[in-house]
Amino acid sequence: MKLVCYLQLPSVAEFSLTNEIANEFTKARPDIELVNCFTEDEFIEQLPTADAVSVWVFKQEWFAIAPKLKYLCTPAAGRDYFKVVPPAGVEMRYGSFHAPIMAETVLGIVIGMSHRLLQNATAMRADNDNQEAKAWPRDAFTGYATRCYKKHAIILGFGHIGSEIGRLLKGIGCRITGVKRTIGAAPAWFDADDRQVTLDKLAPLLPFADHVICVLPSDTGAIHVVDKEFLSSLPPTAFIYNVGRGVSIDEEALAIALNEGKIAGAVLDVFEKEPLSIDSPLRTAKNCYLYPHVSAVSPDYLSLYLQDLAKEL
Amino acid sequence: MKLVCYLQLPSVAEFSLTNEIANEFTKARPDIELVNCFTEDEFIEQLPTADAVSVWVFKQEWFAIAPKLKYLCTPAAGRDYFKVVPPAGVEMRYGSFHAPIMAETVLGIVIGMSHRLLQNATAMRADNDNQEAKAWPRDAFTGYATRCYKKHAIILGFGHIGSEIGRLLKGIGCRITGVKRTIGAAPAWFDADDRQVTLDKLAPLLPFADHVICVLPSDTGAIHVVDKEFLSSLPPTAFIYNVGRGVSIDEEALAIALNEGKIAGAVLDVFEKEPLSIDSPLRTAKNCYLYPHVSAVSPDYLSLYLQDLAKEL
Repeated sequence: MKLVCYLQLPSVAEFSLTNEIANEFTKARPDIELVNCFTEDEFIEQLPTADAVSVWVFKQEWFAIAPKLKYLCTPAAGRDYFKVVPPAGVEMRYGSFHAPIMAETVLGIVIGMSHRLLQNATAMRADNDNQEAKAWPRDAFTGYATRCYKKHAIILGFGHIGSEIGRLLKGIGCRITGVKRTIGAAPAWFDADDRQVTLDKLAPLLPFADHVICVLPSDTGAIHVVDKEFLSSLPPTAFIYNVGRGVSIDEEALAIALNEGKIAGAVLDVFEKEPLSIDSPLRTAKNCYLYPHVSAVSPDYLSLYLQDLAKEL
Repeated sequence: MKLVCYLQLPSVAEFSLTNEIANEFTKARPDIELVNCFTEDEFIEQLPTADAVSVWVFKQEWFAIAPKLKYLCTPAAGRDYFKVVPPAGVEMRYGSFHAPIMAETVLGIVIGMSHRLLQNATAMRADNDNQEAKAWPRDAFTGYATRCYKKHAIILGFGHIGSEIGRLLKGIGCRITGVKRTIGAAPAWFDADDRQVTLDKLAPLLPFADHVICVLPSDTGAIHVVDKEFLSSLPPTAFIYNVGRGVSIDEEALAIALNEGKIAGAVLDVFEKEPLSIDSPLRTAKNCYLYPHVSAVSPDYLSLYLQDLAKEL
């Protein structure tokens, strides 16, 4: 089995395969010959003898020069990631290792919003503009800060990532509602407060949401699931988060809901169009905190990916 | 048993006893007569018949007009909180209910720093001054963001609060070193990676710390435990946190260590002198995030306190 990797992404070092991580993998799996390419030219040269490739980008015409190819793989989680049509005999494989990294990030964000840590991270710094607030801004916490224990978290998209997010939130005592297309067996960590529902059964639960966490993929018709109507069903104390795909949320409707105080805040790591436009209303919306699609960034990103991939090859 | 409460603190509503919370308590414990006072005059009027009082402030001369008093109680956790000398027969009681609220806060802060969520909470907002960084600031995460799994957390002060912090960090896979004066039985959640040590055994572990969490009280001679020498033993990737008492950290030495990049960041909720001076070097130190002694703020603060207190009366 020859696995040819061309995993280089200039903007995030953790998404680029180093020889160190490649060698670590080879030690653990000497049965797989891993070739690590740093340029497209190197990669194309290896294609004729590749049984499997792992890439961020694959062009349709490359199939013609890869006669032995059986697996076209990527660390990306979204089933819509590859824009190519593979020939018969080539399977496409997506990453399913993101859950432990992303669930930690989401746990931090949910606690951060509840306890008002994100909102006030720089409130007391001298370089903060708000001179009045910064001395001892307890009024930014009193009446707002609250612990997550017994709070109701609705997780939209309850696959392996959503479920791991639920497990960590359960660890601090949240009540979990997992929303998915097909209800399977309940996770082992569920207790009497937790449940799974399909999307069409969600509406009556929204007024009782404290945290709504979107982990929806973009390939299931789940476009603008969170729209004006959805947002208006939430209580004004609710927080909304998106670490799935940007298209699940109507961004314009969200900015309006935030500015009108219809919900208490939002944290978004993904957007309809990335990079997010400088003119996006989200950049000025009230209680809105934005990250550049980094919820899975960790030094072990590609180690976790390769370990996971090796099981399937 | 007559319990007279005078728990009013104007700066934080959650630390002020409402009749709603008092009535909730009375329903659960009809055997205790709770009188909720809103002014000092009301409180003084009740003192002659009080078996127990619960207060934020108690004056030495009040003992003379409280002949039945057996318990002088406060929600404050610090054993140095009361500055009075009680007469024989009066026991002082301190709050020991803070752990679940504070541990959640600390978990959020540790994840927030590791994944760079606190540092970049407002990086993409249009009202952020740094026009260059805000468009799509992935460079603020790559090379820095890392998950907490398998990271080493040293918890200075491993009583009921420190131990609950450890339990939550264990839930995301951290390795725990609890530092305390007297080593007792290991918590049930310890695994082979975890240990308890006394302070004099800590020095050799400091170069291997990822997160140092201070939950030290101020009444044990634990002044400036974190000093220049302590800080210089930490690796440049380490984060330090304080939710205990301000005196455990030499603030000047910490500001210097941060500015010189000797450690990666700090989050402080408590200070040597509170409110923190506007001129404190911490307010401008690099990677330093400050909160106004709010790690225990939650709407259920006084409910938890009264439930806990009732068990001891």
